[in-house]
This record gives sequence, C-alpha cells and structure tokens, in this order.
Amino acid sequence: MKQPGPPDPPCYNQAMSVVVVGSVAYDGVETPHGKVDRMLGGAATYISLSASYFTPVKIVAVVGEDFAREDVDLLAGRGIDLTGLERVPGKTFFWAGVYSADMNDRTTLRTDLNVFAGFQPKLPPSYRQEPYLLLGNIQPALQRSVRAQMEGVRLAGGDTMNYWIQDYREELLATLREWDFLLINDGEARMLSGEHNLRRAAARILDLGPHTLVVKRGEYGAILFRRDGHFLAPGYLLEDVFDPTGAGDCFAGGFIGYLAEQGVDPRDGEIPFPELSRAVIYGSVMGSFCCEKFGVDRFRTLTRAEIDARYQEFKTCTAF
Amino acid sequence: MKQPGPPDPPCYNQAMSVVVVGSVAYDGVETPHGKVDRMLGGAATYISLSASYFTPVKIVAVVGEDFAREDVDLLAGRGIDLTGLERVPGKTFFWAGVYSADMNDRTTLRTDLNVFAGFQPKLPPSYRQEPYLLLGNIQPALQRSVRAQMEGVRLAGGDTMNYWIQDYREELLATLREWDFLLINDGEARMLSGEHNLRRAAARILDLGPHTLVVKRGEYGAILFRRDGHFLAPGYLLEDVFDPTGAGDCFAGGFIGYLAEQGVDPRDGEIPFPELSRAVIYGSVMGSFCCEKFGVDRFRTLTRAEIDARYQEFKTCTAF
Repeated sequence: MKQPGPPDPPCYNQAMSVVVVGSVAYDGVETPHGKVDRMLGGAATYISLSASYFTPVKIVAVVGEDFAREDVDLLAGRGIDLTGLERVPGKTFFWAGVYSADMNDRTTLRTDLNVFAGFQPKLPPSYRQEPYLLLGNIQPALQRSVRAQMEGVRLAGGDTMNYWIQDYREELLATLREWDFLLINDGEARMLSGEHNLRRAAARILDLGPHTLVVKRGEYGAILFRRDGHFLAPGYLLEDVFDPTGAGDCFAGGFIGYLAEQGVDPRDGEIPFPELSRAVIYGSVMGSFCCEKFGVDRFRTLTRAEIDARYQEFKTCTAF
Repeated sequence: MKQPGPPDPPCYNQAMSVVVVGSVAYDGVETPHGKVDRMLGGAATYISLSASYFTPVKIVAVVGEDFAREDVDLLAGRGIDLTGLERVPGKTFFWAGVYSADMNDRTTLRTDLNVFAGFQPKLPPSYRQEPYLLLGNIQPALQRSVRAQMEGVRLAGGDTMNYWIQDYREELLATLREWDFLLINDGEARMLSGEHNLRRAAARILDLGPHTLVVKRGEYGAILFRRDGHFLAPGYLLEDVFDPTGAGDCFAGGFIGYLAEQGVDPRDGEIPFPELSRAVIYGSVMGSFCCEKFGVDRFRTLTRAEIDARYQEFKTCTAF
C-alpha cells in the first residue's frame, strides 16, 4: 500500500543544502506499545526526514534491490535529493531490536549488514560544494573520507557510538579533529572522555577538535557545551512514547537543519551561542515527534506548523 | 571543635515563618569521594538550613541526649527557632548508607530510630499561627496531626517515600487531601499513581488533593505540575558531587523558603505559575549546593549572594 505523502511539500528560504551520510535500513522493532517486523529505518533516513523540515537535504547511502518504491517516494516527497542513494545487488541493511518496559534500554536481536557492509560513500559532484555536512553513525574512517570529499563545507559534524569509541579510537580521534560539532549520548561522552562527570567529560571532548558538543540524555533532554558556557535543555514531556528508535538521529536532523535554515556561516566568526541553543531545542522537538509513532510514521503527517508550535511550548514550559 | 557560624546572619524582609517538621539525625555516609562516620543530618535539618536563607524557620523535631552543642549552634546560628526541638532521654536517630559509584543509588546500612521511634510532634503555641508548613518525610498520620495543629496555615505540603506509599497508602491519601503541594521523586510519583508516564502520573496525583506537584529527578532536574501546565527545570551541572544526602530536602527548603519570602498567599487566589517556577529553580539551586560538600557542611559557609548568583546562572544556562 502506498503511504500518503507529507501534507506540506517543502519550500525553503534558501538553497544551501545539508549533506547527510549514514545508513538507510529496514528495522524490526518491539516496544511495550507494539511490534513491527519490518519498516523503513536507518540513521540517514531519520536525519534526512527531520532536517528536511528546515532545509534542502542531499542523502548519501546504500540500499539493496529490496528497497521499496514507497520508501523512495517518502524521502523524495520530502524533497530529499536521492542522487547519492546508491542501489546495489543484495539486500538492504536490516536491524531488529526490542525495548525494555521503560524504553530506556534496548537489546539488539539481529544486525544483517547486507549491502551496508561494503558501503564506500561516494559524493556526487552536485553535493561537494554544499556548506553543511551531517555524518550519521558509521565507521569513523568512512566519515573522514566523506569530509575530505566536501570541497566547500563550512559546518561539519555528526554522531558516533560506543563500538567505534572502544575499538576504533585512533580512527575516531582523527575524524573528530576535523569536526565542528559532535552529537553523542551521555554514556558515549563518558566513554570517549574517560570522565564520569559530564562537565569534565565535555571539557576533555572539546579538546579533541569540535568547538561544539551536544550531549543527548534521552527523555532527560540535552546539554550543549562550548568552551565559553553550556546550555541545559530539558526533555519534552511526552504523553506516550511509542518507539524511541531514531529519536537521536531526528535530534541531529533538527539541529543541523535549523542551523542551515538560519544560514549560519562560521566563516563570519563564531556561531552565536543563542543560535546553537535554539538548534538544540529544535533537535529536541524533532526527537520528541519521532517517538510518537512507530519508525518514521510521524513524518508522514508532521507539519512545520506543528514543529514551531512545539518549539513555542518548550519556551513556555522552561521560562521562569 | 566548634564549627564557625555562617557568614551572613539571616535578616528577613518579613516575619512570617515556615514551620518545618521531620527528622533531626546523625548520619554515616560513604560516597566515592569519602566517608564520614557520624555527622549532622535528617530531613528537618536540611530543609530548615536551606529555607533559612529565605525566611524565618521554626523546627519541630526530637533528638536524644547525645545531640551535640555544636549542632544546636549551627541551627541557631542560622536563626532557626528551636522551641520545637524536643530533647528526650535516649539517643538521636542514626542512619548510615553507602552510595553507588555514579551516586544515583544508595544502600541503607543501618537505621537506628532511637528517640525518633516515639516522635509525636507537638507544636509550641508560638508556631501555630504561622502561614507556611513543610512536612518532611515521616509517617503520614503524624504529618496529618501536625497539619491539624496549625491554626493559620495558608500553604502546606511536603514529602513522602516509597515505604509510606506502599504500606500506609490509606493514611497517606488522607494526609495528601489536605496538602497544597507534594514534592516527591519520579519513582515515588510512579508508585503513588500506578502510571509509568510522568505526565499521566502527575494528572492522577493532582486528583488526590495537592494543586501543585513537584517531581524531583535528581541530577536531571525537576518538573512542576499544575492542572493548567507544567514547568521543566533541568538539573544544575555540578563539577563535583561529593554527597547527595539531603539534596531533596534542601530542594524542598528552597522551594517553600522562596515562596514564603515572596509572601505568597493562596487566600488571594492562585499562586502565580511563574512564582512557583522560580521556587523550583531556587529549590534546584539549594539542592545543588547541598551536594558540594559532605552532609550539611556547605551551609557553614554558603551565602545568599552565592545562591542568587547560581539562580542567575540557571537563567543564563536555560535561556534560548
């Protein structure tokens, strides 16, 4: 069955795109609210859908022959440039996991890398002059190779995970040296820095390259760290969390999407701290929407007006 | 050795007091930062010390013959009225516990109720006309008996714990019906309401009596719930947490202390929401200071100027 397209075809204020690199996958997910055996997922999918509400997006990823037309249509319907979505013989990356009762933990049941095992991101020439780059959680050396292919990048950063931090540390450190920002969760920040206290952990990480660090804390919000200060964002209080899969990636998409929409350009000097803080709130907003339905389903109906209304709600609920 | 008194003798804008009821105790505490075999503790101690930075405090508690002169002096030095501090034959309540490495969990090693076992709070006549009442975590029937002794109370509320929620539920519900506000942690809110989701848990609890609920989330901050909205307060980001003992009680002391200082009077109608939000931030400020040293040690030197500076820091770190 073909899904209905999103209600508001994107219309952007400016033409500068975010290049998003990462996995496009099929996921099997079980939460206390239900179970879906196979649905569209993957970091690059969530990041792109989320960022597409703010700015044009160009995706770089690989899928197999089984990648469904309706999933291509969903991405294309959000105006996402699919020139860099490679289709190769074999099957699309498949991941399955089950969440704990409180949804703060999840157990991976299956990881079939399939065509993703041979992923060597190649940027189409039409991507290379774009100013914004968001690298989803893939092998650090691949993230680095993408960064090197971008010729006009002004703001680059992304995500990583415990596996790379532990077993690919040197590669990861070389990658981070070239990033402007890093978005990771609190456990990863502690592992990367060797410091339990987040304030000290952040100080160490800001010595590794990125001038901006966002530590995501799931339902508890996020903290933005820069050398000159930090910003505390509480988590949005959802009535129901159906499926947290992709929430962190949607956060990243909202964060970079908002900064791109504002046209921030570090060549003009530092990005204003309040702009980064607002990007963190937009990231939180997008992560919160993601949890409201299974997989990417919320993005089939979500509108920019709903996003801006929730941003305002954040303002109301945090002002004192 | 006699400890030095606090640097700024309290001087209040108004004469209306908060009556604080609960335990005054000796604690043995071990955290990853150290170990103290015996030091001043107890909910009423922490609440009173914290509230004393905002408003006059009158304490109701019981201690044994071993209660030290220097501990009396510390409380008196903060201007706390000790008329209701009963001294009876026997030993003061003793509690000992050890914290986990991340300090998010603690294990009780010893609880010697001693004279606290027979605690029947009796309010001195000079306390009964005061407008503000903060009931620390004691048996709900005792909390209720204190509430009944207050003749002019305008704003009453307090704390409870899992033990009373599970085993004294009916008593607790009768007590809560007469409270304006309840301050509990997230686990207790879930237990009391039978709802995992905090938003729904809060809605149920607000049906039990209190018009204001504050859910404390430790390092992650707190949420203020009223029927007409909620306020999200992130946790203060400490460089070092030496000892979290008493932080929740100091939160309560800052919360009620600030409201008393402002002279809020529900007889005038509803307390303005922004006033309650600011009370939550002052609560968070006081809880954060409490963690910076062992036991009550931070209150030996803490000044109101430091409190107000941290409040401003909260403003800076949360504005967007």
